[in-house]
Amino acid sequence: MNNNTPLEHLMRLLASLPGLGNRSARRIALHLLSKRGALMVPLANALMDTAENVKSCSNCGNLDMIDPCAICSSHKRDDSQICVVAQVSDVWAIERTGAYRGRYHVLGGLLSALDGVGPDDLRISKLVERMEGGSGTVEEVILALSATVDGQSTAHYISDHISGLGVKVSHLAHGVPVGGELDYLDDGTIITALKSRS
Amino acid sequence: MNNNTPLEHLMRLLASLPGLGNRSARRIALHLLSKRGALMVPLANALMDTAENVKSCSNCGNLDMIDPCAICSSHKRDDSQICVVAQVSDVWAIERTGAYRGRYHVLGGLLSALDGVGPDDLRISKLVERMEGGSGTVEEVILALSATVDGQSTAHYISDHISGLGVKVSHLAHGVPVGGELDYLDDGTIITALKSRS
Repeated sequence: MNNNTPLEHLMRLLASLPGLGNRSARRIALHLLSKRGALMVPLANALMDTAENVKSCSNCGNLDMIDPCAICSSHKRDDSQICVVAQVSDVWAIERTGAYRGRYHVLGGLLSALDGVGPDDLRISKLVERMEGGSGTVEEVILALSATVDGQSTAHYISDHISGLGVKVSHLAHGVPVGGELDYLDDGTIITALKSRS
Repeated sequence: MNNNTPLEHLMRLLASLPGLGNRSARRIALHLLSKRGALMVPLANALMDTAENVKSCSNCGNLDMIDPCAICSSHKRDDSQICVVAQVSDVWAIERTGAYRGRYHVLGGLLSALDGVGPDDLRISKLVERMEGGSGTVEEVILALSATVDGQSTAHYISDHISGLGVKVSHLAHGVPVGGELDYLDDGTIITALKSRS
């Protein structure tokens, strides 16, 4: 089989997906070919359908079929809180808990000197715009960013940037995960959990 | 985001691929959405193209754009040898070496009591048909099946089945992989390699 057949092309595209390599791409391509009608054609259609119909919300950056998204256009959500997250998957994670009823703002990534991601690559100015345009309805910004170097430097940058707007800025609590065993936790988490004990 | 959007449907399909789960499907779907034009639409087209144009060779079971496949229809290959493999990926692996110039026969799997794969699920009768129809041109059948329980029982079954046809049946040699360190090899391989020393 030479290098320019549709199958080789498909395997190259599959191998470029995150978490996949040449070997897993081969395996997936052969699996798909063995289930053309049940999986391969539906997958092609689902890709096309999603590419055409799923939009990024121009307000918060969430993905949905409508713009503004269902969360932004809902009247049941609390306008006084904006939860800032890095990725759309973080919105899904928080929505799964059902514990938050405010609005969201998806940055689209984290500041990273190593990966060359600067403030202009993220939707930070849009966040400031939303807070200024909200005419005082936004009371709290919850920075739900991961507890990594990039996450924390992004949180610091945003805190600094919106400190003049008279809005409360809060962070997710650090501590022992529910169900987590102390024995398996790193020292940093244990120290933070001890300091923030209640 | 509720459960019946195109994105949820896409993630369910992706999660059903071999080696992928919910988390990797989510990651891939978000990655695709961030590269709609460069990756998502080309991938959908490549899937459709492959599903429509890549056929299984009716003679040997290999995948190609033409039927019979390029290897079966080539006049430069040796008709006296048939190499029996489990999967199309095994054909690719052997072709990459460039060390074999005969024909192939792809079984489409291995006999497995555990997975309920019987002789009728594999292309064994087609192999016998090819050997009988070849009017004496086939001199050797090389069983290039993996050195697992399923691979070896499939090899035994085929050996038994074609022993009456007056054709030489050979197996791949077992031994130390080239570049392999003895220290990391299992006892079975070392014992086999010792017995077959040359």
